[in-house]
Amino acid sequence: MKPLGPIPAGFAVIDGELAIAGLTASTIVEQAGQTPLFVYSADMLRARMAALRAAMPEQLHIHYAMKANPFAPLLRLMGQLVDGFDIASGGELAMAINAGLDPARISFAGPGKRDGELEQAIVHGVTLNCESPAEIRRSLAIADRVGRVPQLAIRVNPSFELRGSGMKMGGGAKPFGMDEALVVDAARLIIDSGAQWRGLHIFTGSQALDAAAIVETQDNVLTLAARLTAEIGVPLPHLNMGGGMGIPYFHGDQPLDPAAVGRPLADRLESLPPELAGTDFAMELGRYLVGEAGVYLTQIIDRKESHGQVFLITDGGLHHQLAASGNFGTVVRRNYPVAIASRYGAPAEEDANVVGCLCTPLDRLADQAALPRADVGDLVVVFCAGAYGASASPSAFLGQGAAAEILI
Amino acid sequence: MKPLGPIPAGFAVIDGELAIAGLTASTIVEQAGQTPLFVYSADMLRARMAALRAAMPEQLHIHYAMKANPFAPLLRLMGQLVDGFDIASGGELAMAINAGLDPARISFAGPGKRDGELEQAIVHGVTLNCESPAEIRRSLAIADRVGRVPQLAIRVNPSFELRGSGMKMGGGAKPFGMDEALVVDAARLIIDSGAQWRGLHIFTGSQALDAAAIVETQDNVLTLAARLTAEIGVPLPHLNMGGGMGIPYFHGDQPLDPAAVGRPLADRLESLPPELAGTDFAMELGRYLVGEAGVYLTQIIDRKESHGQVFLITDGGLHHQLAASGNFGTVVRRNYPVAIASRYGAPAEEDANVVGCLCTPLDRLADQAALPRADVGDLVVVFCAGAYGASASPSAFLGQGAAAEILI
Repeated sequence: MKPLGPIPAGFAVIDGELAIAGLTASTIVEQAGQTPLFVYSADMLRARMAALRAAMPEQLHIHYAMKANPFAPLLRLMGQLVDGFDIASGGELAMAINAGLDPARISFAGPGKRDGELEQAIVHGVTLNCESPAEIRRSLAIADRVGRVPQLAIRVNPSFELRGSGMKMGGGAKPFGMDEALVVDAARLIIDSGAQWRGLHIFTGSQALDAAAIVETQDNVLTLAARLTAEIGVPLPHLNMGGGMGIPYFHGDQPLDPAAVGRPLADRLESLPPELAGTDFAMELGRYLVGEAGVYLTQIIDRKESHGQVFLITDGGLHHQLAASGNFGTVVRRNYPVAIASRYGAPAEEDANVVGCLCTPLDRLADQAALPRADVGDLVVVFCAGAYGASASPSAFLGQGAAAEILI
Repeated sequence: MKPLGPIPAGFAVIDGELAIAGLTASTIVEQAGQTPLFVYSADMLRARMAALRAAMPEQLHIHYAMKANPFAPLLRLMGQLVDGFDIASGGELAMAINAGLDPARISFAGPGKRDGELEQAIVHGVTLNCESPAEIRRSLAIADRVGRVPQLAIRVNPSFELRGSGMKMGGGAKPFGMDEALVVDAARLIIDSGAQWRGLHIFTGSQALDAAAIVETQDNVLTLAARLTAEIGVPLPHLNMGGGMGIPYFHGDQPLDPAAVGRPLADRLESLPPELAGTDFAMELGRYLVGEAGVYLTQIIDRKESHGQVFLITDGGLHHQLAASGNFGTVVRRNYPVAIASRYGAPAEEDANVVGCLCTPLDRLADQAALPRADVGDLVVVFCAGAYGASASPSAFLGQGAAAEILI
């Protein structure tokens, strides 16, 4: 038996089935008309944001990094809940505009922005987090050509990292942003050009579960921002402090207490250095806001035994759940939280391997998981599917196509 | 400096650029109208097949596993070159039919086939490689309902594996096929039902570079097929011996000599046991046929230094090249063969990191590669991009969308 990851709070049992928003999994599948199916809970998204707001200092803006989940109905809901959006491409900008989001609340980060993407962002008044002096110069030239005042911030590659983060985006040689030593000249280039100076973006890493590490990093971010602002010599309008707050995926992972991040941050924002007296502060979160509010439902097509092991073969797989299969930024495969949705809460009766329908040994959803006995027609649920699921998986692989998605 | 993988044979230099089919990379990009761009060479595909035919026994059928690359123009060309096709989903069947391939030359393997996919295959006369007794029963019921005689083979999960294969698909508990002990009864079920008995599919693994291991496995496959046929008591019409032949991706990998596989196989087919006297034999290859005939071209958008390292930031990335980024079935990331296409053959001048445009540290195309000095506008080429590239990568990630593809 290999352990499964922890199931997030907030899911219920009705009639022996997993239930979301008062509906059983089978009812939701019937309404959606198919498996595989991603289900996102609006109530859970709202509750998550409410809990985060309550834990964080009031003046902190919360931005949604839409790369985590760009599903249009979810994006529209997030538009009512958050203060801003972070995008990573022109494609995401188009999705954001289609979802009715206000471009003035959007900032665009990404190490390789094409000229066409820069132009689109400048025309819509989106803030560009510039990642190199060359990108600043390109942005200024494009803005000049299209007759707009560009909204320009600088993405800093900080010399420190976020300890324990799943994705390190600072502390050493990185493709993201500018090394600290380049920032002051770059900021002067922006300010002297007459562009709108929008401040700094300092993103150190993501998917950390250690509040103390996040607090330490936020301290470092504030100290760095104050120092750079003093050297730039112009008030800092806005500081995007990055994200970092993760969610538990694997056995032994403990959920992060947002208050353990929010309280020290509130203290710090109460005693700011003079350089940051007039600054707006934002955190940019993706996975933390939406990851636990989504599940992936897939139906068992076959059940068989091979050399003494049970295999539950589903109609889903890594083409929708690349990360859960262990093939996205993971060195050692571990089980996500997975359960039999149609026998939810029933006691474990056997160890089973849950696999996808793809003809490759990479397509695993759970290895040797203790589960109630399941058979053809039963529904499997993969939790923590709200972020980096549908859009982060190779949906065209083996001709399978995309899963359905529904916000309820 | 970290080594790059070996560049496949057959590429030329014209005017200091990589050339394919007599055209420079920049000319091909201009014709296609964009980067990122996958370029597949028809000449290389033909040459590969011709060399393989020359090395293999004449009576061996060569099948193309279209999961490796389902690009329609490439599929149509392969239709002129190979003897059959292996598909892995109903989606691939639709693509094969759209490409004008003859369904009678198609077989369908995959551990989780939906009822609708079985029906589609049966109606078109496709051979089903049945992966469980339950799947046989479903196929018979569907065939009965639609009034067709189904073409049924059995996929065997052999008790041996292909030594050194990148993907093991035999030798132990697997979701693929039926354990040897189940095959005889399953075959009798097919034969007694009046279905067309199409024989056995024994796929042990893929991406092996050791000819001796492939020869040993093919011996084992033939021995197993003969034993099972004797027990089934009916002549074996067809044996799909699987694939296994790999291509070099990484520094130190040596290309496989097809004659070192073909000669022993020819000997073996000359002295077959009586059980296999009337059997048609096929090998099913994907990556080996198309992998080296494709390249991925992406343009440098930015060049910068961070903490003493050079970063070349391209408009491509893992959303088209998941495997090259090291995020698909790889434990330790190693460099694929990568070069500066617009300065092809120029001497190395610096160590550079080639990254994609995605805002994630996973998006790497080459780490610390010795390359000629490249700048904004230069083209980067990733070799070995003909298989498991475009269709095996998360093209929607970060709103990026698909790359262009062209067969020249």
